[in-house]
Amino acid sequence: MHDKDLEEGSSLTPRFDASGLITAIVADEKTGEVLMLAHMNADALTRTIETREGWFWSRSRKSLWKKGESSGNVLRVSEMKIDCDQDAVLLKVSVTGDGKTCHTGRRSCFYRSIPLGKANPALTFD
Amino acid sequence: MHDKDLEEGSSLTPRFDASGLITAIVADEKTGEVLMLAHMNADALTRTIETREGWFWSRSRKSLWKKGESSGNVLRVSEMKIDCDQDAVLLKVSVTGDGKTCHTGRRSCFYRSIPLGKANPALTFD
Repeated sequence: MHDKDLEEGSSLTPRFDASGLITAIVADEKTGEVLMLAHMNADALTRTIETREGWFWSRSRKSLWKKGESSGNVLRVSEMKIDCDQDAVLLKVSVTGDGKTCHTGRRSCFYRSIPLGKANPALTFD
Repeated sequence: MHDKDLEEGSSLTPRFDASGLITAIVADEKTGEVLMLAHMNADALTRTIETREGWFWSRSRKSLWKKGESSGNVLRVSEMKIDCDQDAVLLKVSVTGDGKTCHTGRRSCFYRSIPLGKANPALTFD
């Protein structure tokens, strides 16, 4: 496929990587806060589009996975975007249950900062 | 490394994938808008931390790449976060020049929506 079709076309033609995956960024629909990053195979992508709930592929468990199936923190998807080269999607969501998306019990997986300007920074917690 | 050290420790111990890369999400520091997604090897990560400007690894060109080197749209990084399992970072940035991050000339790479609830959706443009 030509770059122009990929970037300027209206066909959904995801560019799955060698493992059959694209990257999915999950952000809060109200605040824009980035909550988590995960991966989707073709099946997870299709299920997410059709059901409006977040489905992913677990690389560690090698299995399809509906976010919130055990925790109750289901991702209700209100908007889904794909990037220029169609290898990443952005999901705007509301989170059901107690609103946490990180398996560590935090709202977001991005809870540690890397101090800038230092050669060997120690992480700081939010 | 145990999960607990990885997730709850203050050591920066990025989990690079088989290609030596972690994923980097770039978001606007003011609005939180997700602008682009790219990848970093260890060198790009170190340079970004030390210079506070966005450096990446181009998988297609197989080379280190400073965002904005040719376009003038340098990413000034004000905040950098790492996720629970240390295989993804989130950069909060301001963009120099005309503020565009996508090589197609748009502000964000995520300029097309995937309509939800349909089996074979056609993308819609912002």
